[in-house]
Amino acid sequence: MCGIFGISGHPEAARLAYFGLYALQHRGQESAGIATYDGTSIHLHAGMGLVPDVFTEQTLSNELRGDIAIGHVRYATTGSSALRNAQPLVARVRGMEIAIGHNGNLTNAAQLRKELEDEGAIFQTTTDTEIFVHLIARNMQNGNLEQAVLDACARVQGAYALILLSGKKIIALRDAHGFRPLSIGILHGDSSQDQAFVFASETCAFDLLEAEYIRDVNPGEMVILEDGKMTSVKIPGSETVPVRQCIFELIYFARPDSIVFGEDVYRCRKNMGMQISREMKTDADLVMPFPDSGVYSALGFSQHSGIPYEHAYIRNHYVGRTFIQPSQNMRNYGVRVKLNPVRSMIMGKRLCIVDDSIVRGTTVRTRVEKLRELGATEVHCRVSCPPLLNPCFYGIALSTHKELIAANHPLESLPDLLKLDSLHYLTIEGLLKTVSHPDNYCLACFNGDYPVPCNGCDASSCSRKSA
Amino acid sequence: MCGIFGISGHPEAARLAYFGLYALQHRGQESAGIATYDGTSIHLHAGMGLVPDVFTEQTLSNELRGDIAIGHVRYATTGSSALRNAQPLVARVRGMEIAIGHNGNLTNAAQLRKELEDEGAIFQTTTDTEIFVHLIARNMQNGNLEQAVLDACARVQGAYALILLSGKKIIALRDAHGFRPLSIGILHGDSSQDQAFVFASETCAFDLLEAEYIRDVNPGEMVILEDGKMTSVKIPGSETVPVRQCIFELIYFARPDSIVFGEDVYRCRKNMGMQISREMKTDADLVMPFPDSGVYSALGFSQHSGIPYEHAYIRNHYVGRTFIQPSQNMRNYGVRVKLNPVRSMIMGKRLCIVDDSIVRGTTVRTRVEKLRELGATEVHCRVSCPPLLNPCFYGIALSTHKELIAANHPLESLPDLLKLDSLHYLTIEGLLKTVSHPDNYCLACFNGDYPVPCNGCDASSCSRKSA
Amino acid sequence: MCGIFGISGHPEAARLAYFGLYALQHRGQESAGIATYDGTSIHLHAGMGLVPDVFTEQTLSNELRGDIAIGHVRYATTGSSALRNAQPLVARVRGMEIAIGHNGNLTNAAQLRKELEDEGAIFQTTTDTEIFVHLIARNMQNGNLEQAVLDACARVQGAYALILLSGKKIIALRDAHGFRPLSIGILHGDSSQDQAFVFASETCAFDLLEAEYIRDVNPGEMVILEDGKMTSVKIPGSETVPVRQCIFELIYFARPDSIVFGEDVYRCRKNMGMQISREMKTDADLVMPFPDSGVYSALGFSQHSGIPYEHAYIRNHYVGRTFIQPSQNMRNYGVRVKLNPVRSMIMGKRLCIVDDSIVRGTTVRTRVEKLRELGATEVHCRVSCPPLLNPCFYGIALSTHKELIAANHPLESLPDLLKLDSLHYLTIEGLLKTVSHPDNYCLACFNGDYPVPCNGCDASSCSRKSA
Amino acid sequence: MCGIFGISGHPEAARLAYFGLYALQHRGQESAGIATYDGTSIHLHAGMGLVPDVFTEQTLSNELRGDIAIGHVRYATTGSSALRNAQPLVARVRGMEIAIGHNGNLTNAAQLRKELEDEGAIFQTTTDTEIFVHLIARNMQNGNLEQAVLDACARVQGAYALILLSGKKIIALRDAHGFRPLSIGILHGDSSQDQAFVFASETCAFDLLEAEYIRDVNPGEMVILEDGKMTSVKIPGSETVPVRQCIFELIYFARPDSIVFGEDVYRCRKNMGMQISREMKTDADLVMPFPDSGVYSALGFSQHSGIPYEHAYIRNHYVGRTFIQPSQNMRNYGVRVKLNPVRSMIMGKRLCIVDDSIVRGTTVRTRVEKLRELGATEVHCRVSCPPLLNPCFYGIALSTHKELIAANHPLESLPDLLKLDSLHYLTIEGLLKTVSHPDNYCLACFNGDYPVPCNGCDASSCSRKSA
Repeated sequence: MCGIFGISGHPEAARLAYFGLYALQHRGQESAGIATYDGTSIHLHAGMGLVPDVFTEQTLSNELRGDIAIGHVRYATTGSSALRNAQPLVARVRGMEIAIGHNGNLTNAAQLRKELEDEGAIFQTTTDTEIFVHLIARNMQNGNLEQAVLDACARVQGAYALILLSGKKIIALRDAHGFRPLSIGILHGDSSQDQAFVFASETCAFDLLEAEYIRDVNPGEMVILEDGKMTSVKIPGSETVPVRQCIFELIYFARPDSIVFGEDVYRCRKNMGMQISREMKTDADLVMPFPDSGVYSALGFSQHSGIPYEHAYIRNHYVGRTFIQPSQNMRNYGVRVKLNPVRSMIMGKRLCIVDDSIVRGTTVRTRVEKLRELGATEVHCRVSCPPLLNPCFYGIALSTHKELIAANHPLESLPDLLKLDSLHYLTIEGLLKTVSHPDNYCLACFNGDYPVPCNGCDASSCSRKSA
Repeated sequence: MCGIFGISGHPEAARLAYFGLYALQHRGQESAGIATYDGTSIHLHAGMGLVPDVFTEQTLSNELRGDIAIGHVRYATTGSSALRNAQPLVARVRGMEIAIGHNGNLTNAAQLRKELEDEGAIFQTTTDTEIFVHLIARNMQNGNLEQAVLDACARVQGAYALILLSGKKIIALRDAHGFRPLSIGILHGDSSQDQAFVFASETCAFDLLEAEYIRDVNPGEMVILEDGKMTSVKIPGSETVPVRQCIFELIYFARPDSIVFGEDVYRCRKNMGMQISREMKTDADLVMPFPDSGVYSALGFSQHSGIPYEHAYIRNHYVGRTFIQPSQNMRNYGVRVKLNPVRSMIMGKRLCIVDDSIVRGTTVRTRVEKLRELGATEVHCRVSCPPLLNPCFYGIALSTHKELIAANHPLESLPDLLKLDSLHYLTIEGLLKTVSHPDNYCLACFNGDYPVPCNGCDASSCSRKSA
Repeated sequence: MCGIFGISGHPEAARLAYFGLYALQHRGQESAGIATYDGTSIHLHAGMGLVPDVFTEQTLSNELRGDIAIGHVRYATTGSSALRNAQPLVARVRGMEIAIGHNGNLTNAAQLRKELEDEGAIFQTTTDTEIFVHLIARNMQNGNLEQAVLDACARVQGAYALILLSGKKIIALRDAHGFRPLSIGILHGDSSQDQAFVFASETCAFDLLEAEYIRDVNPGEMVILEDGKMTSVKIPGSETVPVRQCIFELIYFARPDSIVFGEDVYRCRKNMGMQISREMKTDADLVMPFPDSGVYSALGFSQHSGIPYEHAYIRNHYVGRTFIQPSQNMRNYGVRVKLNPVRSMIMGKRLCIVDDSIVRGTTVRTRVEKLRELGATEVHCRVSCPPLLNPCFYGIALSTHKELIAANHPLESLPDLLKLDSLHYLTIEGLLKTVSHPDNYCLACFNGDYPVPCNGCDASSCSRKSA
Repeated sequence: MCGIFGISGHPEAARLAYFGLYALQHRGQESAGIATYDGTSIHLHAGMGLVPDVFTEQTLSNELRGDIAIGHVRYATTGSSALRNAQPLVARVRGMEIAIGHNGNLTNAAQLRKELEDEGAIFQTTTDTEIFVHLIARNMQNGNLEQAVLDACARVQGAYALILLSGKKIIALRDAHGFRPLSIGILHGDSSQDQAFVFASETCAFDLLEAEYIRDVNPGEMVILEDGKMTSVKIPGSETVPVRQCIFELIYFARPDSIVFGEDVYRCRKNMGMQISREMKTDADLVMPFPDSGVYSALGFSQHSGIPYEHAYIRNHYVGRTFIQPSQNMRNYGVRVKLNPVRSMIMGKRLCIVDDSIVRGTTVRTRVEKLRELGATEVHCRVSCPPLLNPCFYGIALSTHKELIAANHPLESLPDLLKLDSLHYLTIEGLLKTVSHPDNYCLACFNGDYPVPCNGCDASSCSRKSA
């Protein structure tokens, strides 16, 4: 997962990109980068770590000059050479400088990379973004960038929300299925001439900038922004492709104060909790989120079921990226350092814990054991999505097939494995009731119905179940 | 405000102090320090900033040797020379090294400092802690540290929870009123010999270390820990002094997962919310904490009133100590960067916002204006403590008298000033119903009934109302 | 200018590369990088700044695994995006990872870059190194790396000393003219099997590692090191190309304790000083280097002329990269902060100052003015190379034509311009007497006789004199 | 050893103190600090490390306000708590803020500290400076700072050059023997009113600031600077005390471009070399400094003896404080990383190496072995001071008695121990011929004639030979 941002026509473009990325930080914490265009050339600053660690006042004021900017935050991966993968990627193609940021995962990346290498292309990163740049370069004989981007789209398969900067132009687009989100906003200035267009993966970035959310870039749409004018182009062939937006954005990934795919994320999550309560009656003394991300479905569950909601895990707001080893007697320190359960809410209580999803299950088991140690008499778990049975090829690092607990054990065995008294997953039908356009979502991780087959992509998440 | 910690008899004393301070970080973010004793001498490491920024694996492993440690986190103040004020303070007195950490505020600090200077004492910090060290040094002619500490106590007035390290000894004490909290725990090892005593301002530090909470250091008690044995001494004269614990610890300062003064903080806060609901009927569509610290009283309020609780402010978990200036059109950026309201929960709604306290009121007004901008039709405010009418002399930086909005305006004018439809403060009587021993609390900030007069103390909070 | 290093067959390859680069630090201070191969993949760590700032014990021990390593230090340029230009450059070509470090300057870089871009190649850096990688990729259809490198050499013109790592192989080569230096050494271990080959721009790197200097990579030679065996290949066509090594390495750039192009740099410089004394009799009280780099020719001059040598500039060894602005009354602070003249050696003295070269002349004039201010009665200047009349296209950043003082003013006017009593440049003939093979050197910066024409290269040094 | 600096009456006082300390950096690299007075209060910034690492533009511009400043650099010691010892020390005494920096070593420090502790004083550092502050505080009943300083002087014994800031006043003084240096300069501005007085341990600090050297603070003199006026007071009793300046400043410690104790350090060192040549005829092919600090006596030796001087050790100017471990086969890496001998100057040569002093002899032996390994046929050593037979109690960290090689072995055995063909130390008589006032120097380290007895001082250098 990644977050992308773009702004055009603002004298403080880099500064606004900084705050935009700040609001999108939850989409990627490994690296951050901003590229600007000052009328002459592109300036790039990127680095490992969080947005506030990568940029300084000096970087924003002096280095990242210009009134057009794009930015990118990248999800944590491993590898010492990761700095090379920080985006936006800036390159010269046919005498023209371009900068590009990408959110998503190409399913034919491995094949494309091989083809390109066979033609003599060199790769300096392991990102899919670099594949895009190569394809654009190869399709730009006549110097038409927009056409070259469309030609590149014709070659790639899978998920991509892209933001591209070249000269005075910003190009933003989403693949035909629309897997990943991308929204358009307007930042109003003092006069009507003063307005600037902004793009962001989620609308929470607009809120921080006090920009107005206009609409989404549509699946299969390429938007070109130049000199304050926005034009829209349909990616050829996209008309026949069904919209398949990633429902996991709504379940877990997006910030609850965002509007994503036209859905109010907060409301969706509350509805998921209500729906769970409808599907499965629960007898408990209190319902609690498990731990942070289940807050909104837990609220919905509580409001529907009448079981009191308690905010029974306390977050330590000062947890940083510490590398201090714990003491030997600090067992399971990892799950405790950020969140501490409130003893008086646990002791002697029948708990209903609400989680957004269960991937490997290890953290769940450890936490449930701790709750029982603290005196919980019953622990029931409700999950605001169906069982995760299949890996994702479109950009969500959901672990490989063999790590998904629900894919490797019969459902009826899970309560025992997780030390639970009962376990209920929201049904696919129930989940779809929480969204406005149930037909427009990709559910592959639940039902295996992949909109785009995995063509030997080299995503870490891609070790598909054999056979 | 500050947090203090101590541990004796553990081979990884510094490491456990590190994690103890980590859990107490909310009590002070300006500086952090740990002092250890390795059988020969005291080692100190202290620095500006958060606990994870001050200590490294190298510091803990190599520098801070020994199986006895005390630690301190200090609340943010200003001043470039603040590093000198970082604690624990280590000094040689009469050939003996001592380290000392202090939470509280002496009311006769200015007078004592003058007296000591008149006798030729020099001061290298502006902390009250240094006054203590001077008094101890002057009273230790016969080399009896415990007696010298008691003699020092006889001289000082005001609030102090102290932790002191010298040789193999840890001394922990609370002033006779018991203004500031200090608890005792045991860290159990593999065998019964393995146990180590721990001290901490709040029990949440014990939870992280998996230590067991035993009891509090009592008001007016001095506890001496040496060679695994704990002895208790009554501070002379403390018997006749009424217990006056700081009720603001329960309202706002302590972590909700702590037990403080024997009270479960989480429950107390919920009870405050319920009590508000009892005192004042409210008609609203939803109740929301305003923003973070009101969560627990908002929950209590919701459960009593039946008005749905919504977690309608979203916190950006990645906010660091950024010094990037916002763009010019980012008005009131300061209140928005950490917390963003969820639009769909605000628009067209009658809101009941619950705050733990109102000090100056400026943030409240800004946030309420923003809620109205987002479409709230009514905004009612409920506060889980009585109006703050008087400054605190005992260690809580509550601003000076002239900054307290409730002390400078008639109560009936506040809703208008704060742009509210209605405002209700929890009554003193209501507040006292939420605690087990209502007679044991200092309520000076509400009722002006100061247990210890301010004797020209130089606390920043001390510009008392004239007359 | 840059420095390159390589080592193969040593369990601590990265660590030795670190110290090798340390010894080559004078060849480049902008960025440093090391790439290693661990039998499976290439690991890269590179960053802005000096070698000790870029690498940590952790980087060397944990990240840069493997027993083969190459390294690079890069000369200071400007530009905020310079990190992208840090080398070695690591890329995937035709499914194979390669790392490459380059010292030199291609004269047909601009043209090659354009041709490659026209074919669809993308450029992520502004280095000539990336051109090499593209050419290698395009010529490696059959997977033969050595042949592809030779094919690339057939396309490029200008100066290049290259070190390339791929799989278990290190390839080292120098262009046919041999502009830039590259030496081969052996690091002996405890047994005869234990030996490891090393490559370095200068032999001073071998001294630090206690490696034995064997011979140079010859002009037009490609050396391949694999499994402890070294094979040598002649670059096709190189036989007919005259050797044209950069004489400026001997005059100024190389460290005096290095052997470069088979010449003992220390002796060469002393000989230059002696030769100046032979060419021009000087009457002075003392001879002094002006300031650091002239030490060795000043010694030679003193020994031949009998005029006492004085070390009359004192260097501040603690000067770092400070960005503190001087006070307003600290005029010409820049020339004084590192080097302070000893007053008693200047006052009332007739000075003969010896400099290695004069480029723009501004520093000379400022320093001479300061010497006169301190009471020097006469200042004579002797320069250990001929007048610099032409820019360099082969990798030495000698400023452009219009900045070279000797290229823009009649020689006879220079003493006045520089406030000197007299000025003598070493003659070309005199300079050539100081080296063993006078026919093997490029003298273009003195006589304009360019071995390779500048083909629109985009080196900053390349604004050749019109007409 | 330490360096001290002071300036009064300049709007950029902190900035000039920064550059003054920069020039004095050779006197101390452990920590650096500056204290300023802005008309209201004292501001301090101090930290571990070199001057450029401790201060930023921000520190100088915003924190260290005021037109009076003093500064201090401290010599490397060990201990993790060393930050507390960084100076200037700032303290409140009798309601008055003072800042104080000290160079030297009190011989009755241990006794004074004990007496003060017995009276109830507390010590927060291990510096002698803190003793001074206590004594000043105890003697300032009537608020007269100057008198209190003089009273303090009456109590302390040993070496001290002090710089003290309080209110608008700077007080500078040297002990009656004048062990440590301190000079006075004037910084001229545009008009005659614009001038500012400066103090510095060495005049090289004046050169960098372009200040004019006026005179030294005399032994036993206290200089008070206030409102641009300088007054001088004789320390009572100092008249009868013989001047005993530290001759080691001239031999080794001071920068060669400084004037110290009225002596031109460069000339003194050259004279030492000439005197050695007079005392002992040497037959050698070349003379070389061994390594850096012997440059000037080697030059003198060469000029007197006619043996050619060669600068045969090359310094790596980029050596920083690296903590990278060398590889296993890098033997004696420590002596090689900074300085590399030029092979061609060593091989087959009879060398005369000139060192300023020999303390433990270990580095000498290692370097001589390396020279022999590189083919030196003879190695003769000449030392520009007499044998070091006694520790120093006055501030030079010369190791303890048992570490001094000359104190523990017969002189005639040293050539063998150090692998030398011959060894000659400059005689005491010869040394005294190189200075203008031979009676004014302390020679205790050579002849044991201590001007002030060691009274149980706790200097690390103080383990005097028993009996």
